Amino acid sequence: MKREANFWVLGGDQRQVALANALAEDGHRVRVWALEEGELAEGVEPAGTLEGVRRADCVILPLPVRGEGERLNAPLCPEPRTLDQTLARLGPEQYICGGRMDDLTAALARRYGLTVHDYFTREELAVANAVPTAEGAVQIALEEMGVTLHRARALVLGYGRVGRLTAHRLAALGARVSVAARRYDALAWAEAYGHDTLRLDQLSGYLCGFDLVVNTVPVRVLTGELLAQLRSGCLVIDLASTPGGVDLQRAAELGTRCVWALSLPGKVAPVSAGLAIRDTVYNMLQEKS
Amino acid sequence: MKREANFWVLGGDQRQVALANALAEDGHRVRVWALEEGELAEGVEPAGTLEGVRRADCVILPLPVRGEGERLNAPLCPEPRTLDQTLARLGPEQYICGGRMDDLTAALARRYGLTVHDYFTREELAVANAVPTAEGAVQIALEEMGVTLHRARALVLGYGRVGRLTAHRLAALGARVSVAARRYDALAWAEAYGHDTLRLDQLSGYLCGFDLVVNTVPVRVLTGELLAQLRSGCLVIDLASTPGGVDLQRAAELGTRCVWALSLPGKVAPVSAGLAIRDTVYNMLQEKS
Amino acid sequence: MKREANFWVLGGDQRQVALANALAEDGHRVRVWALEEGELAEGVEPAGTLEGVRRADCVILPLPVRGEGERLNAPLCPEPRTLDQTLARLGPEQYICGGRMDDLTAALARRYGLTVHDYFTREELAVANAVPTAEGAVQIALEEMGVTLHRARALVLGYGRVGRLTAHRLAALGARVSVAARRYDALAWAEAYGHDTLRLDQLSGYLCGFDLVVNTVPVRVLTGELLAQLRSGCLVIDLASTPGGVDLQRAAELGTRCVWALSLPGKVAPVSAGLAIRDTVYNMLQEKS
Amino acid sequence: MKREANFWVLGGDQRQVALANALAEDGHRVRVWALEEGELAEGVEPAGTLEGVRRADCVILPLPVRGEGERLNAPLCPEPRTLDQTLARLGPEQYICGGRMDDLTAALARRYGLTVHDYFTREELAVANAVPTAEGAVQIALEEMGVTLHRARALVLGYGRVGRLTAHRLAALGARVSVAARRYDALAWAEAYGHDTLRLDQLSGYLCGFDLVVNTVPVRVLTGELLAQLRSGCLVIDLASTPGGVDLQRAAELGTRCVWALSLPGKVAPVSAGLAIRDTVYNMLQEKS
Repeated sequence: MKREANFWVLGGDQRQVALANALAEDGHRVRVWALEEGELAEGVEPAGTLEGVRRADCVILPLPVRGEGERLNAPLCPEPRTLDQTLARLGPEQYICGGRMDDLTAALARRYGLTVHDYFTREELAVANAVPTAEGAVQIALEEMGVTLHRARALVLGYGRVGRLTAHRLAALGARVSVAARRYDALAWAEAYGHDTLRLDQLSGYLCGFDLVVNTVPVRVLTGELLAQLRSGCLVIDLASTPGGVDLQRAAELGTRCVWALSLPGKVAPVSAGLAIRDTVYNMLQEKS
Repeated sequence: MKREANFWVLGGDQRQVALANALAEDGHRVRVWALEEGELAEGVEPAGTLEGVRRADCVILPLPVRGEGERLNAPLCPEPRTLDQTLARLGPEQYICGGRMDDLTAALARRYGLTVHDYFTREELAVANAVPTAEGAVQIALEEMGVTLHRARALVLGYGRVGRLTAHRLAALGARVSVAARRYDALAWAEAYGHDTLRLDQLSGYLCGFDLVVNTVPVRVLTGELLAQLRSGCLVIDLASTPGGVDLQRAAELGTRCVWALSLPGKVAPVSAGLAIRDTVYNMLQEKS
Repeated sequence: MKREANFWVLGGDQRQVALANALAEDGHRVRVWALEEGELAEGVEPAGTLEGVRRADCVILPLPVRGEGERLNAPLCPEPRTLDQTLARLGPEQYICGGRMDDLTAALARRYGLTVHDYFTREELAVANAVPTAEGAVQIALEEMGVTLHRARALVLGYGRVGRLTAHRLAALGARVSVAARRYDALAWAEAYGHDTLRLDQLSGYLCGFDLVVNTVPVRVLTGELLAQLRSGCLVIDLASTPGGVDLQRAAELGTRCVWALSLPGKVAPVSAGLAIRDTVYNMLQEKS
Repeated sequence: MKREANFWVLGGDQRQVALANALAEDGHRVRVWALEEGELAEGVEPAGTLEGVRRADCVILPLPVRGEGERLNAPLCPEPRTLDQTLARLGPEQYICGGRMDDLTAALARRYGLTVHDYFTREELAVANAVPTAEGAVQIALEEMGVTLHRARALVLGYGRVGRLTAHRLAALGARVSVAARRYDALAWAEAYGHDTLRLDQLSGYLCGFDLVVNTVPVRVLTGELLAQLRSGCLVIDLASTPGGVDLQRAAELGTRCVWALSLPGKVAPVSAGLAIRDTVYNMLQEKS
């Protein structure tokens, strides 16, 4: 983004605050609306109304765009704002982007002739978000374990974005990391990065040695049968989105400590998560031009 | 420790529990006293009295040995135990060890003709304890910072045991680490491990770029003047023992977030800290024989 | 591979020797043919003829299968062996695998009704081979540079398999690594692993700071114009297969030191390369069953 | 070194060339003598005679100062220069430094009333030199081993400067590193940096698993008895200075591949080694003032 542009940032949480501040610091003109309680940097102009939003080069909607019901997701705005009152003010000629578009929001956008580009579907944002997610997993492990990660035996289930970066960080802190994955090439990658490997479908019988298990696979991988094989004191962190990869009821019955951690980027590092959105929006604008 | 020995573990916190459990797991005979509320592993025998303690090959006192006043440090014992009633039962012919002996305890030991070997003065324990301390510093940084450690700019003051291992872990997590030390050889080591370096006595003017400052130097390094140079939002973690390396009053006035973290090993990883005491005691017994 | 199987290994170089030895060490029955000058481990039986090869559960042809002309690739065999005399002895019912099948060999195999499974097309072998390739690049850099890799500024062009593992190793040795790639998600991965990033199509003007450039992109990336921007003394290592990514003629004119390194795995670590083929063949047999 | 100074660099090899070039690049006035065949950077003035050397703020003698017999160590000078003709021209009031002073040179210096400060005895230079030494060990391992360092089992004997940095690099490249040392605190450091540990005096019986052994201990550690326990194919690299740590005659009899590598910094990375001398000289001048 070499050219100075005119951005409007509408709604959202601390990530959107960081995003707006960073845009301003990069020299762009930035106005925000429905972010009243955010701590804005110098140069970011709060707008009381959406007057003038049609002149924006780029309008950035929050992540996710929709809050409860038909509201705009705007936790830092004291008054509820509806999606309808927001989208109605935007124009079909504008470059609009938002995160994690759902059917209801998409239908509403269509009604007003708007095209909303979803930054959350971009691979580079998914990779960038895997960094704070992995750090969040490390933080939970440090908080919950009575032994150091150094020399702990850790098992990471899945070797996609989050699995890779989590395994990397655990190993960097001195843990002895094993990775379980389904595909041979994923296992080859894990081995190339120095981890031991297990077949994800052949975990039974190999679980008793671990002090920590981090799941990243979004299907029920840790069944009751497998949970029962974990050593007493083993910590389980589940990073998989709903319905999660762990049989939580069975874990509770077995007394297994289990932390189900969702949406870590916005919680553990909102500023970094906001900067990642900014970089992605820049890429989208670059590709458009 | 190849030969099976007869250990008594007296008082202490979760570290002593882990120590007793590990000794038993290694095949030794282990009795504990004044650890009533600890979760003991199979094979560890709780003793209601000190009857038979004179037959121990090795008696292990807690870290520190002395609690409040003239009491034995025994937070897991519901009833207070005095140092006097403890030491009076031990014999001059026994191998007794304890952590962080103070003058009062030493005087009392002398009165009964006892030699108490201080495991806390051993260099290998100090190094081993630096690991959980460094992990604790990482945990605090992850909890308190709004940006990821990945790509954060971190400054570590001092490059002794804790400084080295903390810098190593921060860099492993992707932070850009600078190390400030006084001695040229310490700076050369920091550089050999890949860190940037600063002269500890020439920090002024170089501080504004950092997101995180971790102090390990036990003198007032971060004066008010230097604190005022930190960027807004920079987190300061002080790992230095009393009186600490940070002018906390000035930090409060400036609104600098500052966490003074003491005695991390016992807090963040009591089990690992207990295992480190075990290893050190083994070394001491090995040297004796 | 839990079941004991009957393998024949035909032709090939030191990788095939290591492969045969490793199969025998795993408890399989192994016969080799056209590997006369290899140092065979105990249990590997050299066969003077192909008598009995039809009883093999799995026949392993070399990498590549074809040598000069219509010969079997068999540098460790003192007498030339033709592909025809080799394939004519195998049966359509057998599991046959070979590396880097070409049209001529495939046509010949079809004539005899054989199915040859190409292990070289398997992703897990490509990943595994990227490890010795990356180590080979490091070796060349260590041999050719007058400065240490520690603190050197290195640029890796491309962030596929070889680019990733090479960047990882250079950074692990203390180099300051930048990665140039075309795709935004590749750049996000490079950043997530701690490297600085450049756009591959915008290198001009950013090259003068590097001590080392490693190319992994199989198109002419380092044009004469870009080569002219490199600092005097910068080393260029080209790992890209024919036609290579560097304008070698222009490099020679400019006096740029340039090493074009091909087929590193078999050269720098034949034993590891052979073990990788073994693992891949095991996976193929596993999938078949 | 903020003030511009007047340096003379006398004799030496490529390290002294790099040193002179770097001093000039830092803005100092630099004259060189007895370095005729070196490739000098712009700004470095070759001197045909020592005329004017008395006006130098700092005179830098080579490493080592003395060559064969009573000659100045000056391999890049086509004509032999004696120590006597060199030192006779310098003055007692000058700051003179040199590397690895021996008795003969010291006596000669005393005769002329000169004080020669030995930069080679400085701890920071020893640490800095351990970096290219460790890289040299890695290079030899990459060149000589048929398996990748990735996943290789490596044993480092000794955990001083070179042992630490070599173990660090081998582990960074994916080797599974064990460290053997004598002192408990050295073992604790090795463990804190993630390595497995062995007692140096209890190696017998633990050697058969290693693919690589790197010795850094300057006494005969690898006796014939221990060498006989190494697996066939294990590579031994001896970095210890004369008389070396390996029974080379016995190694030859056993067919053990053994590389005795001395003076690596000047061989593998003369430029970095020269920069390290420059930094050390700067520190010495700083302390003086």
